[in-house]
Amino acid sequence: MAEPASAPLRARRMRIDTYQEPVLFMRRDCPVCQSEGFEAQSRVAVSWQGHRIVATLNVVDADFITGGEAGLSEAAWRLLGAPEGAEVQLAHPPPIESLGHVRAKVYGRPFSDAAIAEVVRDVAQGLYSDLQLAAFVTACAGNRLDLRETVALTRAMVGAGETIDWGPGRVMDKHCVGGLPGNRTTMIVVPIAAACGLRMPKTSSRAITSPAGTADVMETVAPVALDVPAIRRVVEATGGCIVWGGSVRLSPADDVLIRVERPLDLDSGSQLAASVLSKKAAAGSTHVLIDMPVGPTAKVRSSDAARSLSQLLQDVARAIGLQVRVLETDGNAPVGRGIGPALEARDVLAVLRGDAGAPRDLAQRSLLLAGELLEFGGIASAGTGAASAASTLATGGAWRKFLEICEAQGGFAEPTLATHRRDVVSARSGHVVAIDNRRIARIAKLAGAPKTPCAGLELHANVGRFVERGEALFTVHAGSPGALAYALAYADTQCDVVLVGGDD
Amino acid sequence: MAEPASAPLRARRMRIDTYQEPVLFMRRDCPVCQSEGFEAQSRVAVSWQGHRIVATLNVVDADFITGGEAGLSEAAWRLLGAPEGAEVQLAHPPPIESLGHVRAKVYGRPFSDAAIAEVVRDVAQGLYSDLQLAAFVTACAGNRLDLRETVALTRAMVGAGETIDWGPGRVMDKHCVGGLPGNRTTMIVVPIAAACGLRMPKTSSRAITSPAGTADVMETVAPVALDVPAIRRVVEATGGCIVWGGSVRLSPADDVLIRVERPLDLDSGSQLAASVLSKKAAAGSTHVLIDMPVGPTAKVRSSDAARSLSQLLQDVARAIGLQVRVLETDGNAPVGRGIGPALEARDVLAVLRGDAGAPRDLAQRSLLLAGELLEFGGIASAGTGAASAASTLATGGAWRKFLEICEAQGGFAEPTLATHRRDVVSARSGHVVAIDNRRIARIAKLAGAPKTPCAGLELHANVGRFVERGEALFTVHAGSPGALAYALAYADTQCDVVLVGGDD
Repeated sequence: MAEPASAPLRARRMRIDTYQEPVLFMRRDCPVCQSEGFEAQSRVAVSWQGHRIVATLNVVDADFITGGEAGLSEAAWRLLGAPEGAEVQLAHPPPIESLGHVRAKVYGRPFSDAAIAEVVRDVAQGLYSDLQLAAFVTACAGNRLDLRETVALTRAMVGAGETIDWGPGRVMDKHCVGGLPGNRTTMIVVPIAAACGLRMPKTSSRAITSPAGTADVMETVAPVALDVPAIRRVVEATGGCIVWGGSVRLSPADDVLIRVERPLDLDSGSQLAASVLSKKAAAGSTHVLIDMPVGPTAKVRSSDAARSLSQLLQDVARAIGLQVRVLETDGNAPVGRGIGPALEARDVLAVLRGDAGAPRDLAQRSLLLAGELLEFGGIASAGTGAASAASTLATGGAWRKFLEICEAQGGFAEPTLATHRRDVVSARSGHVVAIDNRRIARIAKLAGAPKTPCAGLELHANVGRFVERGEALFTVHAGSPGALAYALAYADTQCDVVLVGGDD
Repeated sequence: MAEPASAPLRARRMRIDTYQEPVLFMRRDCPVCQSEGFEAQSRVAVSWQGHRIVATLNVVDADFITGGEAGLSEAAWRLLGAPEGAEVQLAHPPPIESLGHVRAKVYGRPFSDAAIAEVVRDVAQGLYSDLQLAAFVTACAGNRLDLRETVALTRAMVGAGETIDWGPGRVMDKHCVGGLPGNRTTMIVVPIAAACGLRMPKTSSRAITSPAGTADVMETVAPVALDVPAIRRVVEATGGCIVWGGSVRLSPADDVLIRVERPLDLDSGSQLAASVLSKKAAAGSTHVLIDMPVGPTAKVRSSDAARSLSQLLQDVARAIGLQVRVLETDGNAPVGRGIGPALEARDVLAVLRGDAGAPRDLAQRSLLLAGELLEFGGIASAGTGAASAASTLATGGAWRKFLEICEAQGGFAEPTLATHRRDVVSARSGHVVAIDNRRIARIAKLAGAPKTPCAGLELHANVGRFVERGEALFTVHAGSPGALAYALAYADTQCDVVLVGGDD
């Protein structure tokens, strides 16, 4: 379909941060706005030298922008890549035909393979508005995709971005399905595996609904936004890496969907499988170990749910040619002490350095996973993996390898902790009976995690421990007094988030 | 939950039109942003003298706003109602507990009555972001609400706004479920009914997914944004009114939901029933006649679909104490000639005035509905309603009543037509076999309807008529050359939108 040409406007960076939605600011009386009939909330195609983005229009009736300018939000500015003052063309974007498939799905008709590929291609190209993304995500959530649709979604997500080819041989990967605050084993497992001779180029995500993703945590100690050639150099030099998957356009549709899933706090088995496996396939992995914590307040709440999610992951993996092994782990309580990027990094460093006070649960889980991975990767025989992993950690081999990886990624630095802190104390004496993962995570998020890296909380009492009345149960860390007060105001209404039994 | 106080900022109207989502603009380095830990896309509560709104934050790193100002988008400005420079307080809004109910629904659990009431109350108060509204609407679409949930949604929507009490006696209403372009019978039926002595205070909606709603069409000839006392005065003086329901906070949650349903182009039986019947109940109606056009490209596509929607409307109406009669009508082709606010108004006026060239189909449908309504209202015996209606129209009684209503609403004016027009001609000679309502509506929307009142299209050929090759099938009307070109570019790819049989 022909797009009517329009007189060009000059691109202007408005320095308005709208998070990730590209927004265009234009004067109501500017000639383009008038002649094209654009209105507030119109979707507008903005083109510069062959690049084209689609942005949502905000119409301006004030003087901080002129009629000759097309003002771009930070997200629009990044995506378009035009210099200040560049001539940009504005036009109505063609109607998004693939939205018809989303509408049909909402009304209960299954996606065809071709339909889902069209949707994912348009999503990856940034054609969907946030509202349209929200409708797509909601229509797919709650187990509304069957296996065929999930496989098609996964394949479409791989196909919509870059892929990395590592040549012959096994390429190991691990992934945790999440829901367990502090479960930051990747940063320990990768250096163990690499030190033992496995090839493990690990791309991680940022948090979706949790207070921190591995990429958020790793970023507090080393750069994680590496491109594909840089990743290749790091892995060829050290055997492993721990980088952010979002900067390499591996499954870029996933990154777009995540920006909507996060504020909606929605995810589903199918989206989880497509998200995880499309990233792994695009990253060139051949063997993927999946850590699935199961517990009443973890993401996977029961063994039944674990079995069906595990089956789905196996089925989708088989269809797209990946080997997957799923390990159900204890998901009853947070792992380690810290929750939030910098606090979790501190726990990881303590384990790697063999500090006397290092959280034992984090070390044990990491060794369990690393042992399994050594066996899955064929360099330890059945039953011997955990011992090999333990010795690699104990001798400092894992710590040296971790520093080597950090240096190759751009340099290691200690994480910066928060200056705004306050303890939440126990109202009674007794044994800690339970810790509610979801509400603990919520407090960390209210304190600012993961966007504020130093924010989160530090648990002082494990399940089973005896605490005195007035003893600190946890410390909230925040980047500002307001965020601290906000998190504490919520925590004060949740007196049983760390449940202390009535032994007094 | 206590909200931490913050230093006040001065409210500033930014004159940025973000359509209906309230947006707050704040400097990244302003003290409140810093101390509260606000970030782009944060939801922020803005308070002024007991009024509180929740807005989405855009963070600014430029000088067109100072660190002491809280910049408000047009929607935020309207909702808050503070004067320029007023001191406003900013805080984190409390978490929206009712979102948990939406999430549970996405995962397949039915809403309880209490849950849906909480959701609707929060929606009506503007607490949901557009993303969250999109998730709610999508979760309810596609027949995912059962009868009990639909009744609960309807009751909750009535309860969340104002209601009008007309005292004893019948209060008549009619509603068309839509999907049939140009079907603007309300503006003919209301004056007939009022002229015959019925009381008919009609509140209409603006377009959701169509090129025009009755309120959009009526607004091209008379003011429609009346408050409750004004409506009461008009109805007491004339017996009827045709006003926009959105300006009177009857079922305000419906107005909020519509702003998301419109760009998503999603609606469902349950939402339709809740939307229509909550408005009617809140407006104080006792008897509602529903015009349900059925046709392959109308909103209701088959007799089966009509029966199930009709049953749903009857069931919900009974549960909330309304009498509903449903009339299935022919939905095979657009009604009248014009599609778009001003063009449809022109057709209505022609029928009321008895012009020789007035569209006969519009007149006939209006008389069918008016006749049914006179019988339903108890002032015509069975089988005699249509004749009474016809005589009221033929004698000019309906036209005089219409002018009387317009004057009472604020004054009558002829609709303004577009200056940018172009014909789309037939590529062959033959009989018109079919007209695709959906694609015809799309062309009208691409031309700018309903936001641009003069935009739309004018049909020249009815189904069955013989057209010569090169003869105009329809004329596109637009408010700007760009919008005209845009609509025509789409129309050019849809050569069969008016299907002409191969008689040549």
